[in-house]
Amino acid sequence: MSEYPTSIGTSDEHSITLLGHDLAGELLGEVGFAELAFWLVAMRRPTPGELRMFEAVLVALADHGFTPTAIAARLTLLSAPDALQGALAAGVLGGGSRFLGVTEDAGRFLASAIGRRDGALPADDAGWDELAREVVAETKSAGRFVPGLGHPVHKAGDPRTPVIYRIADEERVRGPHLELFAAIGRVSPEILGRTLPLNGAGVCGAALADLNLPVELLRGFALLARTAGLLGHLAEELRRPIGMQLYDAVDRSTLYLPPG
Amino acid sequence: MSEYPTSIGTSDEHSITLLGHDLAGELLGEVGFAELAFWLVAMRRPTPGELRMFEAVLVALADHGFTPTAIAARLTLLSAPDALQGALAAGVLGGGSRFLGVTEDAGRFLASAIGRRDGALPADDAGWDELAREVVAETKSAGRFVPGLGHPVHKAGDPRTPVIYRIADEERVRGPHLELFAAIGRVSPEILGRTLPLNGAGVCGAALADLNLPVELLRGFALLARTAGLLGHLAEELRRPIGMQLYDAVDRSTLYLPPG
Amino acid sequence: MSEYPTSIGTSDEHSITLLGHDLAGELLGEVGFAELAFWLVAMRRPTPGELRMFEAVLVALADHGFTPTAIAARLTLLSAPDALQGALAAGVLGGGSRFLGVTEDAGRFLASAIGRRDGALPADDAGWDELAREVVAETKSAGRFVPGLGHPVHKAGDPRTPVIYRIADEERVRGPHLELFAAIGRVSPEILGRTLPLNGAGVCGAALADLNLPVELLRGFALLARTAGLLGHLAEELRRPIGMQLYDAVDRSTLYLPPG
Amino acid sequence: MSEYPTSIGTSDEHSITLLGHDLAGELLGEVGFAELAFWLVAMRRPTPGELRMFEAVLVALADHGFTPTAIAARLTLLSAPDALQGALAAGVLGGGSRFLGVTEDAGRFLASAIGRRDGALPADDAGWDELAREVVAETKSAGRFVPGLGHPVHKAGDPRTPVIYRIADEERVRGPHLELFAAIGRVSPEILGRTLPLNGAGVCGAALADLNLPVELLRGFALLARTAGLLGHLAEELRRPIGMQLYDAVDRSTLYLPPG
Repeated sequence: MSEYPTSIGTSDEHSITLLGHDLAGELLGEVGFAELAFWLVAMRRPTPGELRMFEAVLVALADHGFTPTAIAARLTLLSAPDALQGALAAGVLGGGSRFLGVTEDAGRFLASAIGRRDGALPADDAGWDELAREVVAETKSAGRFVPGLGHPVHKAGDPRTPVIYRIADEERVRGPHLELFAAIGRVSPEILGRTLPLNGAGVCGAALADLNLPVELLRGFALLARTAGLLGHLAEELRRPIGMQLYDAVDRSTLYLPPG
Repeated sequence: MSEYPTSIGTSDEHSITLLGHDLAGELLGEVGFAELAFWLVAMRRPTPGELRMFEAVLVALADHGFTPTAIAARLTLLSAPDALQGALAAGVLGGGSRFLGVTEDAGRFLASAIGRRDGALPADDAGWDELAREVVAETKSAGRFVPGLGHPVHKAGDPRTPVIYRIADEERVRGPHLELFAAIGRVSPEILGRTLPLNGAGVCGAALADLNLPVELLRGFALLARTAGLLGHLAEELRRPIGMQLYDAVDRSTLYLPPG
Repeated sequence: MSEYPTSIGTSDEHSITLLGHDLAGELLGEVGFAELAFWLVAMRRPTPGELRMFEAVLVALADHGFTPTAIAARLTLLSAPDALQGALAAGVLGGGSRFLGVTEDAGRFLASAIGRRDGALPADDAGWDELAREVVAETKSAGRFVPGLGHPVHKAGDPRTPVIYRIADEERVRGPHLELFAAIGRVSPEILGRTLPLNGAGVCGAALADLNLPVELLRGFALLARTAGLLGHLAEELRRPIGMQLYDAVDRSTLYLPPG
Repeated sequence: MSEYPTSIGTSDEHSITLLGHDLAGELLGEVGFAELAFWLVAMRRPTPGELRMFEAVLVALADHGFTPTAIAARLTLLSAPDALQGALAAGVLGGGSRFLGVTEDAGRFLASAIGRRDGALPADDAGWDELAREVVAETKSAGRFVPGLGHPVHKAGDPRTPVIYRIADEERVRGPHLELFAAIGRVSPEILGRTLPLNGAGVCGAALADLNLPVELLRGFALLARTAGLLGHLAEELRRPIGMQLYDAVDRSTLYLPPG
């Protein structure tokens, strides 16, 4: 008979085990939710410094105003008010490549560049700058863009970026991904001919990768963060709805062009 | 022109404001993720005691093994491996009334019973027991069940329940919902003729209601918690998959009955 | 070992069986898609008359312009362009009680009223009118509304309604649900004091119930119909997008009210 | 003020226009559902021959037994029984690259090969075979697989394939995609060293492309088809459920491996 292995947890009549611990006796009231989320994915507990960074990343990514994601969630709550899980899922489904992708894309890009490098990693800024120049030039000549460089609004600098780097230094979790990304920020003007800020959500991807979290799950962490933001939007939709108003605005502004 | 009001946040070229604060300057590295989630819904910051309870509730609800939710998420990741948001959403969609409903149902039930009561709330256990007897008897004679009473596995007692109550006492967040639910647990044997434990997920609903979180969003918090559990399952599916094995097991065990 | 029974179909190395027939040899090119959809749910083939009505219902329900459903689907395609199934799913999730519910609600309402009646069904309009008066009066005094009565736009009459009834007569599939709904339309002015048209989507619910399709699946047929409409919207979004424009419009029209 | 253009339809108090026609007066009872679906995407009505092929494709793709998609939908219905749209959406979300992708992948592959070719298309089988050899050899040397070649079950031949080709000949809708795919089937043994059948779902992709339907929407048609199959599964789940049984089977067969 098939057996389905899992290491997440188990339970019996008297106890619930989660990640190898007694949920009720050891975890409740002792372990925070973000710490548990990290632990569930990484299968290890974060150090205090790693946890502070992880929480900062989730806070940085939690909300971004009336994104297509938040709008879709609110419209779905309007349409299916008795199925909150549907409204939340509709919002989660907007967490794809276009707007939520930069955290994952930057993380993967940096991990790939680091992984492809032979030999030791650079030991100082000059070394990182050299690697960064190769990476940016190679990306440019392949006709591609460096994910995480640039921001549509924060053109002079994303306010989240220096704070993430500061926390990384304070908690000693500044690793190769953050180093390479900072170097890319330093050198890209000379190669691309324009100064582009490091996108805060991209920095979050580098930070998560430096916490040794799997790159395949980076989008998942952005989605976990955004789930909190979506709950905020759904709560606000219940207090002060915009869904019907938006629907009406689109309806009134529809321009019907008969098919040719 | 339509205006869409929001109090969650805003941003401009130089700053990001979230819940009235400068995200980068005041929140990153200073506010935890669960604290932010609470704040986003309640539009107020939790006290330290409220936060400890809130984190405990999220940890208590985060995972429940190979639930239909977790299985659906894993199967969807197998089928659509390049759209993690789809796998997560498929898991979220299982967060409906049947298995994830007890947190919301218990919270609403208790809130409704408390809301319908004229006059002051009971001041001691005897008073709560009296209210509980009315509520249980009324529910029974209406042919309905008290949500949150009973557990399919933890028949002698849900291990999460006493810990949630202990934390409530420690942090002084034990309010009318938790009081009424405890009283229901005490008196229901005499009315129903059987001893049923207080379901831990139901206790979580009472605890969230005692944090003054809106009952319409209780399911949302269970879903936020479960999102972390789902990420754990998706991470495990990438490390040690069961999706294909499960699909094959169902396929091999299909009994085709030609339509009559 | 568990066995999972199904009567939908099976396959082996050389053949595929669907609904008891050889898919390739008997169904492809011989059975239409709507016919198959009916057959898959009802486990019987529709008669030609039933099929014509079923196709008309699906066509009637397929699209409704820039509904919250269509908008959410388009916004999700914008955000996650490489996961079309996510955009479609986001649209499907809007198919809940508020805007898509009337087909199911009317069908259930009529089925319930008919099911509760003792004795033979009415034999003429006068008999149906009498039953209709009871039903409308009872609903009104319970403080509820008759689902399917009224339409926000087509106040003088929903253009789909008389056509569905005509097809029902032509194909001899006018049964008790359609009869009762027509009677409700006739008598409700005298009881409610206002003339409300029979909503076309509600008439579709009555028509589906008269095809003996299960009331629990009525929403499913509305969703199947709407899936075609959503594909039309997604195709148009790829040709002439509105998603980004809508996002920008909401963004520009956001009124930030700092939390009090 | 923003205007949102659409050519799908419009409505006013007295009429509903869909695709340039009066829905009630011209389409209901006159146009079939699959015909409408084609029309909504292609913005033109299919000829009778095109429609017969389109219906055959949808029928060919509608169901595939207990796929991960169907299982996820059934588990979600079990968990959230009052939100049918959630169960349907969960099934739709399984329509990603792994199992449902071959229709789109084959269509895109063939379209790309045809599009890259300079000059006139081949005029006979020998010409198509020559193009096919180039394409297969190029794909092989790039370390990739030809999508749509091979089937895990129908190793000696997919029974749907010859029927789709026969209908294509009968209805004169056999175009370059179907020609190229047939040629690939003929020549690939000599290049790959093994005989692989043309996957029926892949042939469907070629057939849809030969109907001039946009390759970006091929997955959407597979999803539309599968929606009918999912409704069949959900109807069967209501009549003879397997969801709880499957959940129990996984639960009983869980092998807990404490984290190392």
